[in-house]
Amino acid sequence: MQWKTPERWEELKKGINCPMCLDFPQPENKFSFLVTELKQSYVRLPKNQYCFGYTIVAFKRHANELFELSQQELSEFWEDVAITARALDEIYHPTKIDYLIFGHHCPHLHCHLVLQTFDNDPSVAVKMDEKEVFLKPKKYQDMIKKT
Amino acid sequence: MQWKTPERWEELKKGINCPMCLDFPQPENKFSFLVTELKQSYVRLPKNQYCFGYTIVAFKRHANELFELSQQELSEFWEDVAITARALDEIYHPTKIDYLIFGHHCPHLHCHLVLQTFDNDPSVAVKMDEKEVFLKPKKYQDMIKKT
Repeated sequence: MQWKTPERWEELKKGINCPMCLDFPQPENKFSFLVTELKQSYVRLPKNQYCFGYTIVAFKRHANELFELSQQELSEFWEDVAITARALDEIYHPTKIDYLIFGHHCPHLHCHLVLQTFDNDPSVAVKMDEKEVFLKPKKYQDMIKKT
Repeated sequence: MQWKTPERWEELKKGINCPMCLDFPQPENKFSFLVTELKQSYVRLPKNQYCFGYTIVAFKRHANELFELSQQELSEFWEDVAITARALDEIYHPTKIDYLIFGHHCPHLHCHLVLQTFDNDPSVAVKMDEKEVFLKPKKYQDMIKKT
């Protein structure tokens, strides 16, 4: 993986041809399924479930950094994340939930919820893309229904 | 690094002998300096500045997961993070800011702000502990003043 060129990055920060603006509302895209729509965000289940239960909460409108959000947007976005985390906690009982905002591929604000268990290596902070683990279609549907 | 035992983890989740409850309010502790106190959090500058500008926003009271916060706490905590991120953005002009909540050592809620630049490898998501880079005392003081 490489950074986009500085010119393309500036465009992306403005939301020009942002692939995530197009992808996040879709019921299914190349990488994930839509689980539900909350106040400020789309909750999505990535197809790569190498970290079981791994879920994304994506901000609906294009924004890059948290300080670009209005007070209401910021507050409601994190309520959406907290609601999602509570649901995942009740379903999967993780040891700890990681809440991770990167955006190195594309700066459109989205939060990765990664469920850590005592079986994971805690010193390896982020493994969600290290391997690819795909499930049977029915399994995704079951997970979506539970969440 | 290893997980704590399940018994110690349960204690830590309850805030029993939580080292971060003691460390975060200190002007200086083993790992970091206090930069400022905001509504719900302490802003701290880690001594290891391998990722230059790396800053922590730590929730004042003991809580583990975002859904344990009241609506007001959640909203004000993220306002604190956004205020800090805006300040770091104005000082250091990063390409992207990462907002990372782990808590594998200790589940006391704190958010790592890691500043990414085009010089960093974007596929290596978290490098803040990979090496140790310590600065001269005056440099920390300059950084604290600027923030």
